[in-house]
Amino acid sequence: MAPINFGILGCAFIAGKVSRAITLSPNSTLYAIGSRSYEKAAKFAKDNGFPDSAKIYGSYDAVLMTRSGVQIMDATMWMHHPRTAKMKEFLLDSSLFGELKSVHSCFTFAVDKNFLENDIRVKPDLDALGALGDVGWYCIRSILWAADFELPKSVLALRGAVLNSAGVILACSASMQWEDGKTATFHCSFLANLTMDVSVVGTNGTLRFHDFVVPFEENKASFLTAVKSGFTELVTGWEPKPSEHTVSTDLPQEALMVSEFSRLVGSIKFDGAKPEKKWPTFSRKTQLVVDAVKTSIDRGYEVVEVSS
Amino acid sequence: MAPINFGILGCAFIAGKVSRAITLSPNSTLYAIGSRSYEKAAKFAKDNGFPDSAKIYGSYDAVLMTRSGVQIMDATMWMHHPRTAKMKEFLLDSSLFGELKSVHSCFTFAVDKNFLENDIRVKPDLDALGALGDVGWYCIRSILWAADFELPKSVLALRGAVLNSAGVILACSASMQWEDGKTATFHCSFLANLTMDVSVVGTNGTLRFHDFVVPFEENKASFLTAVKSGFTELVTGWEPKPSEHTVSTDLPQEALMVSEFSRLVGSIKFDGAKPEKKWPTFSRKTQLVVDAVKTSIDRGYEVVEVSS
Repeated sequence: MAPINFGILGCAFIAGKVSRAITLSPNSTLYAIGSRSYEKAAKFAKDNGFPDSAKIYGSYDAVLMTRSGVQIMDATMWMHHPRTAKMKEFLLDSSLFGELKSVHSCFTFAVDKNFLENDIRVKPDLDALGALGDVGWYCIRSILWAADFELPKSVLALRGAVLNSAGVILACSASMQWEDGKTATFHCSFLANLTMDVSVVGTNGTLRFHDFVVPFEENKASFLTAVKSGFTELVTGWEPKPSEHTVSTDLPQEALMVSEFSRLVGSIKFDGAKPEKKWPTFSRKTQLVVDAVKTSIDRGYEVVEVSS
Repeated sequence: MAPINFGILGCAFIAGKVSRAITLSPNSTLYAIGSRSYEKAAKFAKDNGFPDSAKIYGSYDAVLMTRSGVQIMDATMWMHHPRTAKMKEFLLDSSLFGELKSVHSCFTFAVDKNFLENDIRVKPDLDALGALGDVGWYCIRSILWAADFELPKSVLALRGAVLNSAGVILACSASMQWEDGKTATFHCSFLANLTMDVSVVGTNGTLRFHDFVVPFEENKASFLTAVKSGFTELVTGWEPKPSEHTVSTDLPQEALMVSEFSRLVGSIKFDGAKPEKKWPTFSRKTQLVVDAVKTSIDRGYEVVEVSS
């Protein structure tokens, strides 16, 4: 199969990471880069190992083709790490994990003064969802992932959201409730030390990982499971104890993401396959919950029903 | 200093663990046991290594003396583990941890059918606070501990509390908010796998431990800290990574608790010292928040202001 050509829009920091992933992914190639400035695009191509044949454009539009039958996939890299599939196996095993009862997710990082003044994520006319749209989006994705993408019945933002003077969220928390009684909470913030926690508790088992968006190391990632946890006699210790599992990967998660995307695009382009619907469905559900949390905050911390 | 004599009220399972701790604690001795039944008391004394000289009573009243100037301390064993002091050092070091921003605590365990039908913790006329008064109490204590026992401004129970047919709480979650903007959430349940998580996030650092009430092992306990966490170039890993710290203890935490209690009682009894006020203050503040969560649930998940 011929490699899939990628066009990159914009020269943001993250585009450098994704460009490297496209280079690392065997079925994918860097084809074009567009920026509002031709010079920035040319410099980005040079700095990020684009082939000499790559197209350089001074606009986004020049890169884009819009047509039906395209594959949509948001760039949620951790969804593609083999650890994620291993953890899902654990959650789906009813004898190990049982029925999902609660999830907690936390994604925070501490920004500097320059970020608080100038980053697009704190500007009401740019990425107006602030910490909720950035790190909170990942928390919500992790919760939906744990809940097999079943939407919660309702969402409630928790009092104490921190907004900047323009009204953009710098930190917030929210809770979710499902029809069957399971619940989740998350906390997201630009104002606290970098933390990426997910804890998932079921009737039989518990799953934890502390580096959910970006694993601590590139070539392997760990998670903790506990099954039918109990105590020793006299409650002086645990029996059994939680156990740690490590999953290795030859390619970083972002290259696995690119590779999977290219595989799907190749199937459409060369084999007449239909686009894989689960990816845009995941995106849409995540955004629905993000929007419900924002609505809850805007309404003074009211409960917001979620409907698909 | 003469050892401090302990009288035990009731023959519950936990009394066996505490009796062992009193035996292990060098400045403490088992002196009396009272039960509603003399036979149960005598059997308990025999099974738990009481000295032959121990008094056996067929009532609670026979054991009790009530007078002023007594030391009150709730039996929250983990407060006395040397790990707890080490973690507190970390939280109090502003260059390592910074300012507290958020706490999440989770304490759940999976009970059986017999517990759900017969345990005093699910009976409205016995321990009517259910999972909130049992495991939720520990979650609240851990949150207050992280917040240096500053009471939250308000408490909100989260929708989705599970009640039994008699109205006793089997699972619930709540959020708390402080005057200075810090926030906390917790989840407690009798209906999910045994889990004991505390995560504390500050401006500079993060603290985690997964066995907060009962350490995984009796003679040592660990915790994870992260300070000024960041990423490698291209965000392919973390630099620095969190680090694990292990604290050993010669005596189990419950014996350290008994020993500290005996030390305080001995000071009062033999040296004319005043009772240490921090212990009843901790108890009272914990109960205030427990009660606020209960009120929030009873009022249909309304925000409840907390006042001391």
